This record gives sequence, structure tokens and C-alpha cells, in this order.
Amino acid sequence: MQRATTEGAGMVAAQPPRHRIVIIGGGFAGLEAARALKGADADVVLLDRNNYHCFQPLLYQVATAALSPGEIAWPIRYLLRGQRNLSVYQTEVQGIDLPARVVHAGPHAFAFDHLVIATGATHSYFGHPEWAEHAPGLKRIEDATAIRRRVLCAFENAELAPPDARAPLLTFVVVGGGPTGVEMAGAIAEMAHLSLRRDFRRIDTAKARIILIEAGPKILAAFPDDLSSYAAQALVRQGVEVLLGTTVERCVAEGVIVQGGLIPASVTIWAAGVRASPAASWLGAGADRAGRVIVGEYLSLPGHPEVFVVGDVAAVAGEKGDPVPGIAPAAKQMGRYVGRLIADRVAGRPSAGPFRYRHQGDLATIGRNEAVVSLGGRKLTGRIAWLFWSVAHVYFLIEARSRLAVAVDWAWSYVTHRRGARLIVGDEAAASPTALSVVKPAHEHLNG
Amino acid sequence: MQRATTEGAGMVAAQPPRHRIVIIGGGFAGLEAARALKGADADVVLLDRNNYHCFQPLLYQVATAALSPGEIAWPIRYLLRGQRNLSVYQTEVQGIDLPARVVHAGPHAFAFDHLVIATGATHSYFGHPEWAEHAPGLKRIEDATAIRRRVLCAFENAELAPPDARAPLLTFVVVGGGPTGVEMAGAIAEMAHLSLRRDFRRIDTAKARIILIEAGPKILAAFPDDLSSYAAQALVRQGVEVLLGTTVERCVAEGVIVQGGLIPASVTIWAAGVRASPAASWLGAGADRAGRVIVGEYLSLPGHPEVFVVGDVAAVAGEKGDPVPGIAPAAKQMGRYVGRLIADRVAGRPSAGPFRYRHQGDLATIGRNEAVVSLGGRKLTGRIAWLFWSVAHVYFLIEARSRLAVAVDWAWSYVTHRRGARLIVGDEAAASPTALSVVKPAHEHLNG
Repeated sequence: MQRATTEGAGMVAAQPPRHRIVIIGGGFAGLEAARALKGADADVVLLDRNNYHCFQPLLYQVATAALSPGEIAWPIRYLLRGQRNLSVYQTEVQGIDLPARVVHAGPHAFAFDHLVIATGATHSYFGHPEWAEHAPGLKRIEDATAIRRRVLCAFENAELAPPDARAPLLTFVVVGGGPTGVEMAGAIAEMAHLSLRRDFRRIDTAKARIILIEAGPKILAAFPDDLSSYAAQALVRQGVEVLLGTTVERCVAEGVIVQGGLIPASVTIWAAGVRASPAASWLGAGADRAGRVIVGEYLSLPGHPEVFVVGDVAAVAGEKGDPVPGIAPAAKQMGRYVGRLIADRVAGRPSAGPFRYRHQGDLATIGRNEAVVSLGGRKLTGRIAWLFWSVAHVYFLIEARSRLAVAVDWAWSYVTHRRGARLIVGDEAAASPTALSVVKPAHEHLNG
Repeated sequence: MQRATTEGAGMVAAQPPRHRIVIIGGGFAGLEAARALKGADADVVLLDRNNYHCFQPLLYQVATAALSPGEIAWPIRYLLRGQRNLSVYQTEVQGIDLPARVVHAGPHAFAFDHLVIATGATHSYFGHPEWAEHAPGLKRIEDATAIRRRVLCAFENAELAPPDARAPLLTFVVVGGGPTGVEMAGAIAEMAHLSLRRDFRRIDTAKARIILIEAGPKILAAFPDDLSSYAAQALVRQGVEVLLGTTVERCVAEGVIVQGGLIPASVTIWAAGVRASPAASWLGAGADRAGRVIVGEYLSLPGHPEVFVVGDVAAVAGEKGDPVPGIAPAAKQMGRYVGRLIADRVAGRPSAGPFRYRHQGDLATIGRNEAVVSLGGRKLTGRIAWLFWSVAHVYFLIEARSRLAVAVDWAWSYVTHRRGARLIVGDEAAASPTALSVVKPAHEHLNG
């Protein structure tokens, strides 16, 4: 074991210094690493810029007003309150001094003997960050509430608009046919075609257009062909238009431009590209095209056995050479593996062999009673797949109370078709007219 | 019955025009007015700048992370979905043209035969709007989440701060000893002294100071003296410092200035003054000192029997000449009265006599098992009052699902001492250092 080479000026070690472990990021990977270090004879520090852990697989349900943020996110320090060897700090990391073994976060510095980087990924616009304003992605709680605001405001603005201006206001485009895009498109369709129908007077929300755009030849690329095909048909049955082999050339305020033509839309949601957080540049390390740090078989940085990179920010080869996917179970496996490895090292125990990813399967839900599940050789579709998806996700919600609350919420909205979190809050709340809302002459009375 | 004198240019009345009623505001008063008009042979329009109705009496529980916004607020159009004669529009009213009988809201115009103004009140800083930035009030969902963010960030920042900088970070000042101030102070004390204790490592949250400042000689001025006194003692037992007869001279970034001295605090909450929304200036009508429109005994504007003002924006004399208080039951009574009055007029029925306010009592909760209730001559304190308060508020939550969800939440947090909505979200989320947070030299290791 190695000690940090620098110590803070003026620090006095009253007793032999304990082993110091710093974890950056409280997502699935960071949290699992922290948990695996429970009871270790070390000072563990977890840093995150947010005070909460977000259950990202259900973020789309916040974006579509089915769940509240508080139902899928919990304070990290609450989740880890039982671990007496662990401290949690809400702070944003600016850089890492590898030779000095120090993490810098604003005015603060955190020395480490072992470091775990689990900073995740964000959406990427293929070199067009200016699209972000017109086509928000879905990675953070703030993204989800911003999308919820836009979607709900679109219906509100359409209710106020003259008949000929309603169609573009009621057009929703989702870019990217992965699980997030499929789930978003299905949920918006369900909202428009079922949940909201009775709430409006001037518009028929069932006439809303939901368009899913995928550049590749099929949606849900990770799934077997027949499941992808089933999912596309299920989406179409729900009233989603699925455009395959269609590349978005530009996102603008008025909608998206594909094949040279504009699809006018009031809301565009970006679920197409992902880019790793900037850990590679902090480390001066090699990265793949998506910015993920290339790590060795023990998930450590080449030449730095004390520095680990896990979760969506790590580029790891899977069993058959194909990369480990950026999904929650993979992040958890990596976090747990590294946490145990460090715990073994600290305890002087022999540690396990190289990391081996076990792919458990792929799930995606399309809507009420519709999902696709691929588990090893097994395939499920329809209601049974949806039930499997629901049970799996309720089970995964790591916290007992939220497990209960989400289950109640889902059961309730299944029975009632309702959405319980339809609040338009935040700075844009004041009935912000979108680029498409039409200024009406003041003498035309809406209630005339 | 009178008809509007102007009609929109180019409008064609295919059938005899229906009576048009416009309600501005979806709070307690506006919602009750709308409900009382259910089934009326009229076109009812409800306008609100938000898409939701907020159950304001529980807003302090959102500000103190006990409830999520979605648990105390619901889309107005959902609440009123069953009323086929009613449309809801999310839009912000800019003015009223009384002679033309038109409400202007951005590019939109809404003609009316009867108008109900229920636009409520906001906090007031006694002519010092510049204090708002340092001492947010608690009237809207956004206020509550902003306060929640500040309170939670104070604990996060204190955990990061060196020992000598922690005391001001852990000082919370509540200005105003009315029910909102008492409830806020009690809830913050409960949070610091119970809920959060096990979650932090470097700070002892039980050492947080919560200071309630009241300019008058007692808190809960509307209550009998013995209940006010009981409430003050209960707050002190919970660890709240209660300063009576103390006037805040200024709110600054570093805290509040009283009697010439600064109380350093990281969070100040303003629960002292209330000012009516600007309906009086829209109407060119007479107003009292708090900006409330002075109405006649039928709650209509003098000289305008077709224009009603109800709820917190109306100045109404009660039974014994003292003003009707700005509380939810009073707003509901006014809204219901006016709704029925208009329904009777539209139907050609004789309508009821002048409005008569029935004061049902006063309740305020101080914390776990502590409340004061004054009901007619009856007085309750302690656990029985708290149970009464809880049952009453769960009952008042007008919507079945939220009633259930809130009950589950409360039961759960009663058992576990937990707070389920402790998310720091929004633009200020990134561990924003307050004016009091201390920049530490980079070489001092927090985990050294």
C-alpha cells in the first residue's frame, strides 16, 4: 500500500493515518463502490455535485409527469447514513492531481490513497452543443423537470392557440431509438392519448403527433431483431410515428430538420448521443470516441493501480470483446467489484481476479402493458414483459420507502390513467410562449 | 342581467350567446367559485398563471423537505375536469377593461358578463423589495423549493466548512410569528434536531440555531393568549429561540439586523408581511393598506355588481367589524358565496343575502405531536391538537389521491423521523456557497 506523498501544511497526525479512499460520483457505480467498502478500516469520502442519487432508469417518468423527482432520487448521505467510515460532501470536482494524489473541488482538496472515479455520462450532440437549447436531453433531475415543463406547456399553449396553429404545438419529436427514446415516445403518447383527454376543452389531445426518429435501421439496437420489430409495432399501435434510417440534420427552435425538410414541433427531446464526463482530461488518460477512460482488466488506470474508473465513464471490454454497455446493472457490477478490490487490499486479503461483466439482459417498456424483455435466450413481450419490467424496477428502487411509494403511484395511475406530477414549475413557468405560439389579435375573444 | 357591450370583430354568434363568466386565479377562492358554478348555463373560464392549484397551508412542508411539490399541488384543469361548462387557460392577466368588460392576458382577451377576481396575495417587505433576495417568502411552489434548497445547502456547506465557520451556516432565522413562521421554525428545528442527525459526520446538526423573530408582544396574534404562550414554550422546548418585541431593521446577505446588531445567519425566511396582488390597480378601485380591494357586502366592486373580488385580495368586514382573515377557509367561503350568487343570477333565481363570514377556528402546528387549536371556545394543545390538525389537513386536501399519498408520507415520516423530499435541485444546486461560506486554502485536506 502506498501513502499520499503530500500532506496538508500544518496537519498533525495524532494517530497513524488511516487509509483514505475518495469516490467521485454518487450514481449507481459510486454508490455500490461505497457500499462495498462498508466496514473497511479506511476513511471513505464520496463527492458529488448533487446531494442526491438519482435512479436514472425512471427519469423518463419524471419527464412525463408520472412520478415526482422525490420518488426517484434520495440524498446520498441518507442512503449511506449507516456507514460510519464514510463522509459525503456536496461539491463539484475541478481536477485531479495524480502525482500528488489529491482531488481538487473548489477551495477544497481531498487526498487519497485509492481513488474511484464514477462520474457518469451526459448527452452529446455530435459536436453541436447549440442544439441543446432546442432539444434537451434526459440525464439529470433538472433535465426531466425542464422537459416536463415543455411538454405540459405545449398542451397549455395549444389550448390557447387558434385552431390552425395547434398542430405544430401538439407535435413532439424524440430523437434516438434506444430504450430512453422508446420509453419517452411511448410515455408521451400515453399521456396525450389517454391521461389528458378529458382535461382540455378546445384541443383534442389524442390528435397530438409523437414522432420517434432513429438513424439506424431498427430501434432498440441492443435487442434481438424480432423484439425490436415488436417494439416498433407496439409504438405504432400507440400512435407513435417511427422514422427509421432518418438522420437529424439540425435542431432548431421550430422543430427538427431531416432529409432537408423541417418537422415543425414544439418539443424535441434528445435521446441520441451520450458522452462521458471529463474524467479523461482530468487524468490525462486515453479515451475512446465517447470520451470514456480506457481502463485495464482490473478497471484501473494504466500505470496507476490506485486509480479506478467505473460505470458510464469507463471503457471496458466485455466477455466477447464487445464493450460493456452503459446501463445501470453494468455500473453496479463495476462499482461493487472495485469497492471489494480496495477493501481486500486495505485488509491485506488476496483480491479477486480481473473484472468480468455478466450481462443479465435488456428491458425496455413502451407503455401500459407493453414492454420487451431479452433475458439470455428468453424473450418476453406485451403484458408479461411489462409486468416483469415493473417488478424488476420496483425491486431495483433501492430504498424501501420509495419502493412502496412508487408501487402505490403506479398502481393508482394504472387504475385511473392519471399522472400525479403534472406541475409546471420554474422560471419558464409563466406560460412561456414557444417559438410556435401565435400572437392573436386582442379583439378575438377566446371565450366568445 | 347585462350583456357585454363589446363583441370581438368578426365573431358570428351562431346561437344566442351564453352568459360568460371569467374567474382570475385558481387558489382556494377561485376554485370554489368555479365549483359552485358547476352545471350553470354559462361559459365559465378560469385563468391562472400556473397550471396548478397549490394547497398553501402545507407549503411549509415542501420548504422543509417533508413533502414533494406534487403532493400539495395539482393541475387546475384536472381538478375541474368534470365541469363541462368550464375552460381553464394558463396565462398571466395584465389588466382589466371594466367599461368594455374584457380581461387582457398577453395577446388574449376574455370578455365577461360576470368577473370573479381571486388573485390572492404575496409577501411584502414593508417597502424594502431589496430584502427579498436575502429573505425569501413562502407563497408559491417556487418559493418553497428555493427555501428548501437554501436550508439543505446550509447543512451541506457547514459539513464542508472548517469548525469556526460552521455556527453562522447553521443559523436559521424566521421573521414573523404568525402560523407560517411558527410552522417553519418548528419544522426546521425538527429537521435539524431529529431528521438529519445521523446523516452528517463533521457537524452536529442538533447544534443548529433556529431563531423566530416577532415584532409584536406574542406569537400567533390571532390566538388566545394562553395558546400563544403555550406555542412559544413548545417552540423553546424544541430548541427554537423566540425573540418577541423585536423588529427586523434590515435583511442582508450575512443575516438580519435587529436592534442595531447583526444576527449572522445563512438562511432567513420572511413570514412577516403580506400584500395583495395588484387587482386594485387593474380596477382603479379603493384599497386598504395591504392593497386589498374594498368590496361591498355582496363582495362586489362598488358600482359594479358584475365584478366580484374574493379571497386574500379582498378587504371584507367580518361579523364584529374586524376584517375577515387571510386564511384558506375564509377564501373558500367567499368563493363559494360568489359562485352561488352568480349561478342564481344566471338561472334567474333569487340570490342569497349579503356575505357572512363564519370563523371556524384557528390551528397551527409546531412540530411532532405539538399544535395549538382554537375552535370557538374550545382550546386544544399538544398531541391531541396535533392529531386534530393532521386529520383536518388530510381531510382538506381536496383530492383523493393526494390525500392518500400525504397520509402515507406522514405516517412513514412519523415512524422513521425521515424527510422524503430532500433534493437540492435548480440552478443554485451546484453547492452554491452562501455569503458565509469560507474559502479554505487548497492545501488543507478535509479528509486528512
